[in-house]
Amino acid sequence: MSNEPGLRERKKLQTRKMISDTASGLFIQRGFDNVTVAEVAEAANVSTKTVFNYFPKKEDLYLDRFPEAAELITRAVRERPEGEEPLAALRRLLLSLLNQRHPLGGIGENYQFFWQVVLDSPALQARARELVDGLEHLLGSLLAEATGADPDDPWPTVAAALVVSAYRAAYIFAARRILAGERPDDVIADHTALLNRSFDALERALAPR
Amino acid sequence: MSNEPGLRERKKLQTRKMISDTASGLFIQRGFDNVTVAEVAEAANVSTKTVFNYFPKKEDLYLDRFPEAAELITRAVRERPEGEEPLAALRRLLLSLLNQRHPLGGIGENYQFFWQVVLDSPALQARARELVDGLEHLLGSLLAEATGADPDDPWPTVAAALVVSAYRAAYIFAARRILAGERPDDVIADHTALLNRSFDALERALAPR
Repeated sequence: MSNEPGLRERKKLQTRKMISDTASGLFIQRGFDNVTVAEVAEAANVSTKTVFNYFPKKEDLYLDRFPEAAELITRAVRERPEGEEPLAALRRLLLSLLNQRHPLGGIGENYQFFWQVVLDSPALQARARELVDGLEHLLGSLLAEATGADPDDPWPTVAAALVVSAYRAAYIFAARRILAGERPDDVIADHTALLNRSFDALERALAPR
Repeated sequence: MSNEPGLRERKKLQTRKMISDTASGLFIQRGFDNVTVAEVAEAANVSTKTVFNYFPKKEDLYLDRFPEAAELITRAVRERPEGEEPLAALRRLLLSLLNQRHPLGGIGENYQFFWQVVLDSPALQARARELVDGLEHLLGSLLAEATGADPDDPWPTVAAALVVSAYRAAYIFAARRILAGERPDDVIADHTALLNRSFDALERALAPR
């Protein structure tokens, strides 16, 4: 099974990326609340309608990587090696994103500018929260599927809440240090250690009974 | 050390309770967004200014028990028996609230009317989230204090996030069943079992190393 998108799909992904990159540049220069969707459209040389086709909400222009996160999480859990726990597959994914300095890792050169925009906009924070809730819900379904849980069993939901909250707490801690102007290499080293400690704790918590 | 408030303090607590009870009645009858603070003041026979003195935000008229929750959590951790882990003290607190059918337990006769108002109001949900974040922050400080953690150590923050997220997930699950009209006794029995399972998992996760 190939995960390569076709030409048409590739063009759409390029347009999507071009629009969100243009938007992000404007938001970082002028602040999220001071830029309209019409200004984004003009700068990206597309119609406002096209912008909304790709991004139903203005916030999603900035928080554009959540669909990719959902896809990576789904693949990590579903395509994990036989005998591996879902949690081990998630740990591998997160550490590899961090290692690659993938934007979803949230840490890298100049990321303080990205984070400052979020810090300054309650609307972006609220939307980020909704999108994280969506990932938590997705993870709950994936864990239920992976463990063959009964549809009424609340445990996969609790387990997903634990995983997402540990990751989120560690991530916010790292983002604060990036915002304070600390060197990405230092932050990544500590963040890696904290993620490993968190996943060790989660594995003890969620060990199959 | 006595925790009994003085006369003046008791009167203030009574007024506070009278105002929030009046407000809750109106919200349950007519929906949160359809009742103004002026209408609450009139029904409670006080001035709008008095209402705002007790409740800076309209949402806090309905979510009025968060200060009590903060106090109970603080006392449970700080005044736990010597040698007891903070987590064990929290478990005891939560199970005892549930046993007493305390409103903070969230489950009882007619609670579906309470929950329906929250379900219908995004403003209430957003404020509840902020208040839960406040409790999580408080718990992080209490755990740092109880374990003598370094002020820079992120671990108490991660631990608090785990505890709050597990409790929150279980609580939402119970609230959904109450909303669906299930019998409180049945929901309480399952909720108690789920809380115990969650705290068993949390104790494994957070066992002192």
